[in-house]
Amino acid sequence: MKELIQVVKIGGNVIDDEGELDAFLGRFAALRGPKVLAHGGGKVASRTLQRMGIEPVMVEGRRVTDAASMPVITMVYGGLVNKTLVAGLQARHCQALGLTGADFDSIRAKKRPAQPVDYGFAGDVTEVNASAFVQLLDLGVTPVLAPLTHDGAGQLLNTNADTVAASVAGALAKEKEHAVRLLVCFEKSGVLAAPQDDSSAVPVLDFAAYQTGKANGTLSGGMLPKLHNAFAALESGVSEAYIGKAEDLLTENFHCATRIALTAVSA
Amino acid sequence: MKELIQVVKIGGNVIDDEGELDAFLGRFAALRGPKVLAHGGGKVASRTLQRMGIEPVMVEGRRVTDAASMPVITMVYGGLVNKTLVAGLQARHCQALGLTGADFDSIRAKKRPAQPVDYGFAGDVTEVNASAFVQLLDLGVTPVLAPLTHDGAGQLLNTNADTVAASVAGALAKEKEHAVRLLVCFEKSGVLAAPQDDSSAVPVLDFAAYQTGKANGTLSGGMLPKLHNAFAALESGVSEAYIGKAEDLLTENFHCATRIALTAVSA
Repeated sequence: MKELIQVVKIGGNVIDDEGELDAFLGRFAALRGPKVLAHGGGKVASRTLQRMGIEPVMVEGRRVTDAASMPVITMVYGGLVNKTLVAGLQARHCQALGLTGADFDSIRAKKRPAQPVDYGFAGDVTEVNASAFVQLLDLGVTPVLAPLTHDGAGQLLNTNADTVAASVAGALAKEKEHAVRLLVCFEKSGVLAAPQDDSSAVPVLDFAAYQTGKANGTLSGGMLPKLHNAFAALESGVSEAYIGKAEDLLTENFHCATRIALTAVSA
Repeated sequence: MKELIQVVKIGGNVIDDEGELDAFLGRFAALRGPKVLAHGGGKVASRTLQRMGIEPVMVEGRRVTDAASMPVITMVYGGLVNKTLVAGLQARHCQALGLTGADFDSIRAKKRPAQPVDYGFAGDVTEVNASAFVQLLDLGVTPVLAPLTHDGAGQLLNTNADTVAASVAGALAKEKEHAVRLLVCFEKSGVLAAPQDDSSAVPVLDFAAYQTGKANGTLSGGMLPKLHNAFAALESGVSEAYIGKAEDLLTENFHCATRIALTAVSA
């Protein structure tokens, strides 16, 4: 049987609440076997930009990272959020090692074209150095990934953390040596049948239902890139993908969350 | 013959000047064999603190890192400076990987006692995970070390970059598998016989001359911790230590710099 690698995505806001952070770190550290953590940037990026006199700009829910913002984003994501998680995991005996895409040339990206919207230093993933991840996992290391990539020519780029998690999961699955499970943690129990009812998570969302939901508007907003990335990971060979709360996903209470599947499966 | 590992220390200010940064990165990337880079924080830390409304506090040339400053120091050292160097080295085909002491549990420290001076979250190195460094070097990776350590209980600590460089060099030398050379780069040609004359670098400074210079005041200020750390590294088994300009040390023009040696040697 192929050894299971678990790739966990968490929002950057987890570091904002000490109790929540503590609970998350404990659960993540307790996960057995090889694992990877990808984290977002969260509100601390916007707060820090404002404290430095830079007004955050968002277009369609995505951050515009201009030349003045990029060093701040680099500091917050690669420094503050990443190192807070790494130090917290080390305290729980998890051999964490923080990476941006530049570190170990782990994730390359190209700057997103300035048309139709100029997102500035936003990067779309072009290549994951799966071998680097495998080598680190083989050393017993748990990579902790900031949502930053690089272009190979010295430029760091701001990259969506869901994309980072799904790209790494997909690249590891393509290596064919491992089974890979993608766990996308967020504030809700999963894809909700009734938007206001957190107990209404659908057990399974397959690609046909995703397409239908996108078309009729029942799936929208920040959920769309999460699902898009999860389906891309499944197409790359990831064996399982779930979306839901960290407290459920990290304790294998998958029945409380939503399984994302290419075709109809039994949850 | 034992393979030579070179440990290079550079100030954080190198990232302030694009031309200087470019020259440094080119020379460091061109160094052959296994190598480690340790960088300082530099003026960008004080500038960033001020932009965030925190007035930097220094006592006897050392930064006081209070609870409000520590997250900023973490961002600047572990995020901005570290990742700028890593991305720049990757662009020059050097397989750089940035680390704080928390990453891979690479360097542990204990918080400095609050007496006689309370430096806040300042850490004194207690343990270097030499095996982590050897494993990374064996993968062809070049560790790039931010001047941050951790206490193993979740707290990051601000640690002098000269100490980080010397501690890692010493720990690698103790492994006895490698010869280690420590290159401490700064803005002058070395230990100057005439303080205003940059061509007056003494070729060799041995421990007796260091003690004499300390006693009579010809050696003072920021030079003292650099020398203290270099001698400590030599006592741990580092085979060579030099202090001088990066442009000389990284091109093996050691005759332009100062060799630090425990006992009188021919330069």
